[in-house]
Amino acid sequence: MTNTQLTLVQIDNYGPWTVTPEPRREMDLQTLQSRLFADIAQFVGHRGGYAFFTRFDNMVAVTNGLDADDHRLLQESTGNRYPVTVSLGIAVDANPVVALEQATEHLQHAGSAQDRERREVLAGTPVEASADDDVAIAHFDVNDATEKYTDRLNEFDSFIQIEQGYATLMRHLREEHGGLSFFVGGDNIIAVTPDLDADAYRSAIDHVEETVGVDLKVGVGQGETAHDAGMAAKHALEECRHRGTVVEMNESES
Amino acid sequence: MTNTQLTLVQIDNYGPWTVTPEPRREMDLQTLQSRLFADIAQFVGHRGGYAFFTRFDNMVAVTNGLDADDHRLLQESTGNRYPVTVSLGIAVDANPVVALEQATEHLQHAGSAQDRERREVLAGTPVEASADDDVAIAHFDVNDATEKYTDRLNEFDSFIQIEQGYATLMRHLREEHGGLSFFVGGDNIIAVTPDLDADAYRSAIDHVEETVGVDLKVGVGQGETAHDAGMAAKHALEECRHRGTVVEMNESES
Amino acid sequence: MTNTQLTLVQIDNYGPWTVTPEPRREMDLQTLQSRLFADIAQFVGHRGGYAFFTRFDNMVAVTNGLDADDHRLLQESTGNRYPVTVSLGIAVDANPVVALEQATEHLQHAGSAQDRERREVLAGTPVEASADDDVAIAHFDVNDATEKYTDRLNEFDSFIQIEQGYATLMRHLREEHGGLSFFVGGDNIIAVTPDLDADAYRSAIDHVEETVGVDLKVGVGQGETAHDAGMAAKHALEECRHRGTVVEMNESES
Amino acid sequence: MTNTQLTLVQIDNYGPWTVTPEPRREMDLQTLQSRLFADIAQFVGHRGGYAFFTRFDNMVAVTNGLDADDHRLLQESTGNRYPVTVSLGIAVDANPVVALEQATEHLQHAGSAQDRERREVLAGTPVEASADDDVAIAHFDVNDATEKYTDRLNEFDSFIQIEQGYATLMRHLREEHGGLSFFVGGDNIIAVTPDLDADAYRSAIDHVEETVGVDLKVGVGQGETAHDAGMAAKHALEECRHRGTVVEMNESES
Repeated sequence: MTNTQLTLVQIDNYGPWTVTPEPRREMDLQTLQSRLFADIAQFVGHRGGYAFFTRFDNMVAVTNGLDADDHRLLQESTGNRYPVTVSLGIAVDANPVVALEQATEHLQHAGSAQDRERREVLAGTPVEASADDDVAIAHFDVNDATEKYTDRLNEFDSFIQIEQGYATLMRHLREEHGGLSFFVGGDNIIAVTPDLDADAYRSAIDHVEETVGVDLKVGVGQGETAHDAGMAAKHALEECRHRGTVVEMNESES
Repeated sequence: MTNTQLTLVQIDNYGPWTVTPEPRREMDLQTLQSRLFADIAQFVGHRGGYAFFTRFDNMVAVTNGLDADDHRLLQESTGNRYPVTVSLGIAVDANPVVALEQATEHLQHAGSAQDRERREVLAGTPVEASADDDVAIAHFDVNDATEKYTDRLNEFDSFIQIEQGYATLMRHLREEHGGLSFFVGGDNIIAVTPDLDADAYRSAIDHVEETVGVDLKVGVGQGETAHDAGMAAKHALEECRHRGTVVEMNESES
Repeated sequence: MTNTQLTLVQIDNYGPWTVTPEPRREMDLQTLQSRLFADIAQFVGHRGGYAFFTRFDNMVAVTNGLDADDHRLLQESTGNRYPVTVSLGIAVDANPVVALEQATEHLQHAGSAQDRERREVLAGTPVEASADDDVAIAHFDVNDATEKYTDRLNEFDSFIQIEQGYATLMRHLREEHGGLSFFVGGDNIIAVTPDLDADAYRSAIDHVEETVGVDLKVGVGQGETAHDAGMAAKHALEECRHRGTVVEMNESES
Repeated sequence: MTNTQLTLVQIDNYGPWTVTPEPRREMDLQTLQSRLFADIAQFVGHRGGYAFFTRFDNMVAVTNGLDADDHRLLQESTGNRYPVTVSLGIAVDANPVVALEQATEHLQHAGSAQDRERREVLAGTPVEASADDDVAIAHFDVNDATEKYTDRLNEFDSFIQIEQGYATLMRHLREEHGGLSFFVGGDNIIAVTPDLDADAYRSAIDHVEETVGVDLKVGVGQGETAHDAGMAAKHALEECRHRGTVVEMNESES
């Protein structure tokens, strides 16, 4: 049974900072946001977690395997190297969106995202490490994306197709199951979910095909950490490719 | 009248590379993608252009102000510092999606995105520099996003709202006008458009409000380059904030 | 008593790579080298270690606190994100230069630094974590560097002074004690040493003053890891500044 | 005849910042310094210049080809993405150290490197672009460094050899000719010099061999920019390797 630890990473007072004293060069903001995300992805990833850029000023991470000291270090190191600071809210629940709800509330209780006084909050209690399969990761991709879209349509129309598929899947998984889905580039979507069986995934895929006409397949894995579960999911997705199937469920590879 | 130069940046053979010989660590892929985008944003941005991460393996840039040598240098520098290479397709048109169509076709004619033999294509002809307002940029944000969403909902539900608003706007601007919209973080969307008047923007905003209930405002600017137009758009957006208006049109600040 | 774990990080086949098929742009090489070092510094630093850029194609790290899995991960992550790979040699000894000798031999036995076939060697046995003060760090800086040099001489002549001081100290500490000294920017030199008393440091400082006329002061710390010892050394150096002393010895702050 | 434009890049108030309110993690400082240098190397390098990390808080760049707007942009972009700001002093002279003297004085006149009030100075007048060979670059490396040192000695003893060679060459070229030499990694040293003939380089090489027993060879190039001159020097160095010579002089490859 899943026991997902979610961390919300929120840049302190970012909106006002981007326009004070004057609006800053947009490409400098894009560079700062992307490099900050990359550093968080490395830090979290090297400890077995997964980080998603989400809105860049607010980023969601699956942090089973990271304790309070790890979170404090990430916060300190960021403050030493960027012109902004981050607040971190941590929570744990069998259901991902419930965990994220609590993680978000930790920060909201401490103050607004645009509260000039609120800096470097660190709230919430990480879960004790366990040997169970605490994390479930589903890795979706679009069938034949290169042939159907990338090599045929202009890039924006390919992008619209991928976005429509993502927007539809993201709502379905969250509303039906509390699962959190993130576009990770190319034609790939990674979701952190509660325990779901193959039928639940088939329903999600059918729903996306019926609603926006985008065909997905999925590999699913479970493990102690997001990395373990995610690597199992990647291998399951390779199975889909080899066997021509739509859903493949995998055990942890840890 | 706009004369938009678009460059499509496509990583060569990326899909196969990410799973050869085995699937690579997801957080390493996220880091590589984000840092590559950041470098492209810096290079393009320092020459007056705008780059958007789009799908990360395919990125769209507005490159008025960058000539063929600039493109060649970006390609060479990337190949010297990353384990992947990029192909670049360039095209120019009054209408952004038409330009992107041609830029994409340049690459498609040279070979598939997953063609192992196709590396570092550089195709298309940059536009001669001109003193006209070649680029139009519209900078949208969500009204009261912090109070309505960030400080109230859990981060994923805030994110869903922003995504729905983005997905709706992106389709509308592309289908009605050939405009290309990109989510750039927070509650911000930047679009490169042809010449549109204030009514066209009001219609787009009404459409998004009616379709998904997300309230946008927009600042619009024009200039020789994306940076000039975009900075004018940012200042116009500040005007919306101060005056409580929904659409503000600005001259170039260059 | 110290028990220093040293890791030699060596880029595989770098010399040939930089000129194949043609010499690469120097600033791209500088960027790649610096960013690779920065990533290693982050990875090692977040686990309590210290990394020094040394010659960039060969970097020395004090890695007490990093086990074999950590080393393997650093190697894998690097190979996923750079156009080069690294080999790692690990060794442990009470005397730093003896440890580095063994770490270097591990790689030399596996093959030349320019052997096209030798890739991603990982050799040597990390030390078991212990609660003793395994690491001794000395943090030197130049007395009144800003007033004497930076604000008075042209930058190259300031730099020559610092370099002469460094070159003299580096030879003395290695030949007398097996200590390894590294210039880390500004007017700062950090050395990893065996157990030395205050007199040994005073002798080293006198030697540098007599030989090249550069006045140093030093803070010394000990701890389980380089970070613990190094932070204690930084605080000891602050003591020198406040008290006007030349040598300050500190306990671990861990 | 050379006409070298030098820019001194100095981080404002860096010493105090690194210890306020407490000493910061050393590996975070190393990462910040290295990544800042990498960004400057990219910016300067993409415009034909060369940047050298020097002391990291003070960096020297050869900036023929960069005008005042380029310098201003580099300064603004840095301030948008780092927790520190930089001051820039620019000067031009046939002799590199004279140019650097003037560039340094520009900053010294504006205030101390540790003056809390002095921020983002931009002083000095870039040279008008010209078609002459304004820049001379000499690229030295150590003969058979891999066989003699890297594959035989422990890394620190290899490093000591390279450092002794560098320290000797740096003093000789500066004192005899006003040339500025910089270690750039591996066994490579790049110098920006006035017009010197092959005999001057042979003398420098003989001096280093006699003084510290380190054998160098050199390729020399001239061009409009450091990149042009430096690439010519790299190719001249390849000639040394193929022909077994000690000094090779080259024309510009631009």
